Amino acid sequence: MQLLLKNIKQLVTVSADGNLMKAGKDMRNIGVTENASVFIEDGIIRWVGPSKEFPDKMKKDADVIDARDYVALPGFVDAHTHLVFAGSREHEFAMRSQGMTYQQIAEAGGGIMSTVKATRAATKKELKKLAAKRLDAMMKHGTTTAEVKSGYGLDEDNEVKLLEATKELESEHPMTIVPTFLAAHAFPPEYAGRHDDYVSAICERMLPYTAKKNLAKFCDVFCDKGYFTVDQARTILKKAQSLGMESKIHADELENIGASSLAAELSVVSADHLEQITSEEITKLQKSGTIAVVLPGVSFFLSHKYADARSLIDVGVPVAIASDFNPGSCMSFSMPLMMTLACTQMRMTPEEAITAVTLNAAAALKLSQKIGSIEAGKEADIVLCEIPDYRFLAYHFGVNLISKVIKKGTILEFS
Amino acid sequence: MQLLLKNIKQLVTVSADGNLMKAGKDMRNIGVTENASVFIEDGIIRWVGPSKEFPDKMKKDADVIDARDYVALPGFVDAHTHLVFAGSREHEFAMRSQGMTYQQIAEAGGGIMSTVKATRAATKKELKKLAAKRLDAMMKHGTTTAEVKSGYGLDEDNEVKLLEATKELESEHPMTIVPTFLAAHAFPPEYAGRHDDYVSAICERMLPYTAKKNLAKFCDVFCDKGYFTVDQARTILKKAQSLGMESKIHADELENIGASSLAAELSVVSADHLEQITSEEITKLQKSGTIAVVLPGVSFFLSHKYADARSLIDVGVPVAIASDFNPGSCMSFSMPLMMTLACTQMRMTPEEAITAVTLNAAAALKLSQKIGSIEAGKEADIVLCEIPDYRFLAYHFGVNLISKVIKKGTILEFS
Repeated sequence: MQLLLKNIKQLVTVSADGNLMKAGKDMRNIGVTENASVFIEDGIIRWVGPSKEFPDKMKKDADVIDARDYVALPGFVDAHTHLVFAGSREHEFAMRSQGMTYQQIAEAGGGIMSTVKATRAATKKELKKLAAKRLDAMMKHGTTTAEVKSGYGLDEDNEVKLLEATKELESEHPMTIVPTFLAAHAFPPEYAGRHDDYVSAICERMLPYTAKKNLAKFCDVFCDKGYFTVDQARTILKKAQSLGMESKIHADELENIGASSLAAELSVVSADHLEQITSEEITKLQKSGTIAVVLPGVSFFLSHKYADARSLIDVGVPVAIASDFNPGSCMSFSMPLMMTLACTQMRMTPEEAITAVTLNAAAALKLSQKIGSIEAGKEADIVLCEIPDYRFLAYHFGVNLISKVIKKGTILEFS
Repeated sequence: MQLLLKNIKQLVTVSADGNLMKAGKDMRNIGVTENASVFIEDGIIRWVGPSKEFPDKMKKDADVIDARDYVALPGFVDAHTHLVFAGSREHEFAMRSQGMTYQQIAEAGGGIMSTVKATRAATKKELKKLAAKRLDAMMKHGTTTAEVKSGYGLDEDNEVKLLEATKELESEHPMTIVPTFLAAHAFPPEYAGRHDDYVSAICERMLPYTAKKNLAKFCDVFCDKGYFTVDQARTILKKAQSLGMESKIHADELENIGASSLAAELSVVSADHLEQITSEEITKLQKSGTIAVVLPGVSFFLSHKYADARSLIDVGVPVAIASDFNPGSCMSFSMPLMMTLACTQMRMTPEEAITAVTLNAAAALKLSQKIGSIEAGKEADIVLCEIPDYRFLAYHFGVNLISKVIKKGTILEFS
């Protein structure tokens, strides 16, 4: 199986030159070549360079795409989603437009708990069907890898149901899927008044089972006011690390209770959200090598403060952008729109935004040795856009500019 | 030619009961019926009501759509666009993300003048081709009527070229198009230092020719700091009114120089932008019956202040939402995304947003006697969305939820 993309109008490689992520000014260095070719064999990129230098003898029976109308970029990596859920919460959206806050809605029976109720009531098969439809739509918008968190089950059986649904989708759907265990998303009603008992249940039963069955690569905790304390988060994440799992943390979304300091202390792979991070904590993240995953769609959707991506980048923290796709705080999975939000609302440059949805997002999933850039040896996850220039992608917003999606060397067909 | 939409899961009529627009609390009254039917003959809606009450004898040889999976809404009316232009300005987008303001970019040779340069250099045929492609994409996103302004020509020949291109598209494209004369969009470089001479050229030559040839329904002026003064705008708009043209005004976008007071004084049909309007002026607009066209995409794209839509509605000004689609300050024509912006950033309710993109937007084009709601006697411009509830449209953002577009009773096919 060979595929040659030739005469690519503009190729954006986000080439990492062997590095696993980009930080600081290097985030602007996205490797742009005009009139380029990419040669793919058995799903792997074998050659990248100017069209005129392509060694024709490499191509034997390759399918050929003449890409003279296209800008080519690495497929997008969405490193933070809550994809598997039932129900929808458009009524809360309407309540919010009348002035209710996210917390007030949660107190009125909405919020995460309303999705937990609907998700518990759904079968694994129903959840898979809903999630697969969303994965299809995400791929049409250029996403080729997605992290998927559990966290709407909040008891052993239902968390396992979500993780198994995710695991099965991983083998059945062309999307590369990275499952994350997030039983520590909220406290279930059954544990009212005895939150530490839920933390024990997570550490003593749910995490060991998840690790043993290899149901998740990452463990994540929502460490925030009204959710898990820093001590509870530390207990859970250390347990996960001791079981050989990778770790992430939801930090500083609603209030700063010290979650990003904990992220640095535990050297988690990524600290996500960071709307309320302080400049001292930004320095801590930089020192610990933690990736900052910013989620501009949430700030947009809830009219909250945006994370200070500008300072994070300027201090040298590698920044990734993710959608946080979920029914309560960001009902969108459009990575190009997240890039528009990053450029218009967080003052990231178009180049930084591209690095943040490709290489650095792959690094936030510990996958950047395999995906996230267009380089020989990496998996051939590539999007083609019929636009005049890569800057156009974040600029012309609210419309899907992805013309073709190539996943592991195969051109996807959409119904 | 008959068409029956039957078993519509949820029909949103935005019924006006003979009124031409909605104001105040009435904007939330959007006429929702479950399991409804709409019967169309020769492009006109003949019957609307609960499916079980449909008089079967009306339908003789009607095509039938079983719409049990769809929410039906009136086609969207985009009452403010600068659709006909050449060139693109993604490089300015990148400059802005690095901290340059809209004005600084204009002073550096960007801004409206860079589009004027590219548009003057393009032929009418080239402009039509670019515009037709954009019109196709707008229709796919649910827009069935679009206002189109001139204003990138800024001399008689080029303004006429734009208006003629628009006029020809009006007859060649399924979109209902309303042309607006906006030679007073900026001062052309040829008139540096003698701005009043350009105002005279507009009033003495360009406007009379436009009116005589019936090239535009509306006359509009960009009345703002650095653009046209209140006195210049008054001169132009009074001249247009004397020639029998309808009038609009770009008011209070960058600074408040009294443009919305002028809008009320002249009883223009709509005052557009209004980011800097005062509460006294809101009351003036309410008294003059002027429609406020808010443009949340511009505030989003430029990180400017949003118009105070909440106060405008609460005081009783009829509010419409438009895209302001243009290459410099809002490179998007997605009306659903404009609704999301209105709900998340301006605290409009989903119902108010729907009224604002349908009936009130039609009123801003003086077309609400014919379009803007799903009522017997009106043209059959209807969108069908495969969503659970009308609130989902603004809620699930960044993806095109429009499944089918019916224009004057014909189901459009998209390539």
